[in-house]
Amino acid sequence: MPDLLVAVPDAAMRDRLSPPPPGVELVVWALGSPPSDRRFDLLVLPYMIGAPSLGGLAGQDAAVVQAQMLGYDGVADHLPAGNVYCNAVDVHEAATGELALALILASQRGIPEFVTAARDGEWAHERYPGLAMQTVLLLGTGGVGRQVALRLAPFDVELLRVGRSARTDDLGTVHAWDDVDELLPKADIVVLAVPLDDSTRGLVDDSFLAAMAPGALLVNVARGPVVDTAALTRAVTAGRVRAAMDVTDPEPLPPEHALWTLPGVLISPHVGGDVGSMSRRMDRLVREQVALLLDGSPPKNVVVRT
Amino acid sequence: MPDLLVAVPDAAMRDRLSPPPPGVELVVWALGSPPSDRRFDLLVLPYMIGAPSLGGLAGQDAAVVQAQMLGYDGVADHLPAGNVYCNAVDVHEAATGELALALILASQRGIPEFVTAARDGEWAHERYPGLAMQTVLLLGTGGVGRQVALRLAPFDVELLRVGRSARTDDLGTVHAWDDVDELLPKADIVVLAVPLDDSTRGLVDDSFLAAMAPGALLVNVARGPVVDTAALTRAVTAGRVRAAMDVTDPEPLPPEHALWTLPGVLISPHVGGDVGSMSRRMDRLVREQVALLLDGSPPKNVVVRT
Repeated sequence: MPDLLVAVPDAAMRDRLSPPPPGVELVVWALGSPPSDRRFDLLVLPYMIGAPSLGGLAGQDAAVVQAQMLGYDGVADHLPAGNVYCNAVDVHEAATGELALALILASQRGIPEFVTAARDGEWAHERYPGLAMQTVLLLGTGGVGRQVALRLAPFDVELLRVGRSARTDDLGTVHAWDDVDELLPKADIVVLAVPLDDSTRGLVDDSFLAAMAPGALLVNVARGPVVDTAALTRAVTAGRVRAAMDVTDPEPLPPEHALWTLPGVLISPHVGGDVGSMSRRMDRLVREQVALLLDGSPPKNVVVRT
Repeated sequence: MPDLLVAVPDAAMRDRLSPPPPGVELVVWALGSPPSDRRFDLLVLPYMIGAPSLGGLAGQDAAVVQAQMLGYDGVADHLPAGNVYCNAVDVHEAATGELALALILASQRGIPEFVTAARDGEWAHERYPGLAMQTVLLLGTGGVGRQVALRLAPFDVELLRVGRSARTDDLGTVHAWDDVDELLPKADIVVLAVPLDDSTRGLVDDSFLAAMAPGALLVNVARGPVVDTAALTRAVTAGRVRAAMDVTDPEPLPPEHALWTLPGVLISPHVGGDVGSMSRRMDRLVREQVALLLDGSPPKNVVVRT
């Protein structure tokens, strides 16, 4: 019997983690398969699953459940009783920060317009606002917000950061949440990097959008429901604001939705953390958890216990 | 009679620079207009003109000619005798470095593919390589190369810089030009930020492209003729390399050219320095030159005397 039985969701991860450290056995167990009669000391979930899928853990004995996602909205409602759930801190934040810059720079420099013009072989020279000398309002000072801030640093922007409460951290001033109303009209670019919870659901509604500067860019790398999709569609249709988003509500966005083809909108299909380097970072986290459990220590990144 | 007579190419610049400092008279004079019978102490050229247009200065007496462009390939051949020509250092480099990052991030994160899929309302989730953990070979350590390097810093890349000779500067190691052959196969991304001259014309030819790693990205923010367009078209058509470029040869690229619609190619229409902040930076340079000339000092950024 091994010291530690670790279940991973696919053969690819098993192969990447093989050979495991002495005393560790790796097995492949897919969410939704019949429960194994063995107890998993660590059970790694597949990437990108909705919280309702966690019902598939019912009947499976697992000491620690390790997700490959960072957000855990809805997990507490769907995780069967008796489980310890860890999220994937430090796996996706850097890649999501990187995507935020890709969305911002593409939108500010006209990349979507150039891609569209290229179809017709059109040299569509036009002046776009660019990123330098723009004011960026960044909502959220967690892992993703931090990675966005770090990557904005050399781009000569005025960065206004907002967190739950006013403070100073190693990156400078953090404004209080109450200051959003005052700061919003000053921003050329508003970046959403907040977790989805009751305080942020529907945050970007008609009045939020009306307070944004004319032509400003809304960037959503948080979660789709932070934005009221109908309100955003109205604001973009009216030419009031532009938008670049990696997440939508609903998700995927239905093929016939107006946002897909409105000018001034750039949509990436929830690929924030999903890049070539993701597997390496996820493997690193699983190895860390294995080492902690072998050591008799508690796992890291526990965010929900049921 | 003013102490200094300054000719600017359009009313917009005149208005932005008005009122001028005491003793300075601002007039609008367009390149190609009949020569004025007054001598211009400073003559500001229009943005984005080909060197042959400089023949339009014939017969116009001007002490100092100030361009709005950084590159000055061909200027020595076309500037009428007796002129002093200054380029626009510090006006475009930051914006061009910013565009280089926009092209790199868009290409590495699938933005062109997402823009294309959006036309059909398609949620085209796929994994792209991203920028983190990639090796970037940056050719050129001048103004643009420096601005690219500064902006790459927070993106967790391995940056290999190449200049004319091996040295160490404030950003780290600079490899010698002779090392390019050895470094080229190691790079996931190759950025061209060299001036166009006899040593760089046609630099990226069949053998350069053959030495690049399979699937690597070539980024050109230098000048079109640094790349052999036919060779690049062959390499991209064969799926050997990808390309993102702000400059082409010829320029504009003809509507029917194959590069426009090849997968893995992103083309922006020479907008490197052409952003909202450009006018402010250009105005700042003209003000600096005016102050120097009022002071009896030589102008800055002199690159050609005929």
